[in-house]
Amino acid sequence: MADDAVSSCEFRVRYGETDQMGVVHHRHYLVWCELARTDHMREVGVSYRELEEQGLKLPVVEACVRYRQPARYDDPIRVRCWVRDVRSRQVSFGYVVERADTGTLLATAHTSLIAVDSRHALTTIPPAIRARLVATPDPVRI
Amino acid sequence: MADDAVSSCEFRVRYGETDQMGVVHHRHYLVWCELARTDHMREVGVSYRELEEQGLKLPVVEACVRYRQPARYDDPIRVRCWVRDVRSRQVSFGYVVERADTGTLLATAHTSLIAVDSRHALTTIPPAIRARLVATPDPVRI
Amino acid sequence: MADDAVSSCEFRVRYGETDQMGVVHHRHYLVWCELARTDHMREVGVSYRELEEQGLKLPVVEACVRYRQPARYDDPIRVRCWVRDVRSRQVSFGYVVERADTGTLLATAHTSLIAVDSRHALTTIPPAIRARLVATPDPVRI
Amino acid sequence: MADDAVSSCEFRVRYGETDQMGVVHHRHYLVWCELARTDHMREVGVSYRELEEQGLKLPVVEACVRYRQPARYDDPIRVRCWVRDVRSRQVSFGYVVERADTGTLLATAHTSLIAVDSRHALTTIPPAIRARLVATPDPVRI
Repeated sequence: MADDAVSSCEFRVRYGETDQMGVVHHRHYLVWCELARTDHMREVGVSYRELEEQGLKLPVVEACVRYRQPARYDDPIRVRCWVRDVRSRQVSFGYVVERADTGTLLATAHTSLIAVDSRHALTTIPPAIRARLVATPDPVRI
Repeated sequence: MADDAVSSCEFRVRYGETDQMGVVHHRHYLVWCELARTDHMREVGVSYRELEEQGLKLPVVEACVRYRQPARYDDPIRVRCWVRDVRSRQVSFGYVVERADTGTLLATAHTSLIAVDSRHALTTIPPAIRARLVATPDPVRI
Repeated sequence: MADDAVSSCEFRVRYGETDQMGVVHHRHYLVWCELARTDHMREVGVSYRELEEQGLKLPVVEACVRYRQPARYDDPIRVRCWVRDVRSRQVSFGYVVERADTGTLLATAHTSLIAVDSRHALTTIPPAIRARLVATPDPVRI
Repeated sequence: MADDAVSSCEFRVRYGETDQMGVVHHRHYLVWCELARTDHMREVGVSYRELEEQGLKLPVVEACVRYRQPARYDDPIRVRCWVRDVRSRQVSFGYVVERADTGTLLATAHTSLIAVDSRHALTTIPPAIRARLVATPDPVRI
């Protein structure tokens, strides 16, 4: 159960994600988290693409990242993702970013999203969607 | 007349626009051209924001950039922009990217855009808009 | 004094900063904060460009953003920035992102940065630099 | 031979790559081409990461993209890449961007890169590298 609740996605660092410090610029971790989150949703049967086509959007209302070790160009990256909390109008996700080869911890993060309709008005997450977004305890301290 | 037809916008290179080569990553020049193009349109009385609100979009169908000298973090940049050609359904812009302080040429570029409606179907540029997008000869070889 | 301690920078939302939700993608607020932070440093006499040229880098080790209202294409944006805390090896900044025309609050944020040398090893912020990075109480709740 | 000379890489469109037009922002195709190019080089035995570690960099000096059909969020993308021309100090690549599922043509592109050393001075591509970058005729008209 615990394992199922934490999804995992892998990719390589793109050149254009680095900055002149020689490491990945910190904004890209939010993109990686988004990638992991939509992958996680797809795995539990919720296509974010279809949600938007049906008029439900989940904008990010809070994002926090702790950067622990730099990621570098061409590094194989793994992002693990899980639901931390789900309510009628809000859902939170946790993330661990690590080297896919060595398992070295690179960053931890969490984001909160709210449900809005096509006019950007606050709405509720449909029960069928909410039922699939099962919260699990943080697998690591984030 | 010639001078009026070439607009100019200035800004500084952002840190996050650099890559590990220590210079601006080449994709950002397209963002700078977009900035210069919408500034140019605003100056001749065409708000691209309003165009989109009215259902007209101008997606880029061709973009070419020649990179001549690297731009670096914090450099003051000037982008000069002009209309190269305007037709019923298409408009092309030219760009010169240069150091704002020394005038050093950094890049030249040109882009072509087509007019589409809110369903992404090809449409015509309204005559009132087209009348403001006056083509001018290239001020430099691009 | 309090006013001097909070810097302010303004710019317009770029088209490429929006996403298909029709608002600014959340990662760009980190770029805006970086812009405000380096502007703030420049105003108090610390050029981040020169710091890096001298071998001192300030990578972000923590970043948190609370998104309150969406920003849209072409909106005039103001980011106010201040030092929250400075220690021998770490400095934290606070940020308020707002509409430059109406003053509407769009987001608040804070980031922590550590000092590293050219080999990415932890180092101390030189006293002359640290003396200029004067902490001030948060002007708003962030 | 012809087939070997054209590499292929696949990925999905990221949410943050879209803009408010509801399609992928045109700058990201340059990032995709870069991804395809470094994959292509890796497949023929040239690690761009190692090249840079040895002091050889290949900055882009020209990039042209023709956008034919828009790419959308979550679309499966394939980029095919090949060497168009290789000289002592310069190498050019061609690209076809297409839907990975339907094969629909989305864009074609070409880029030219020059060889520079760690001080950004023009240099020659080492013969051992050049021997692996074998040019092939364009598989499609670009």
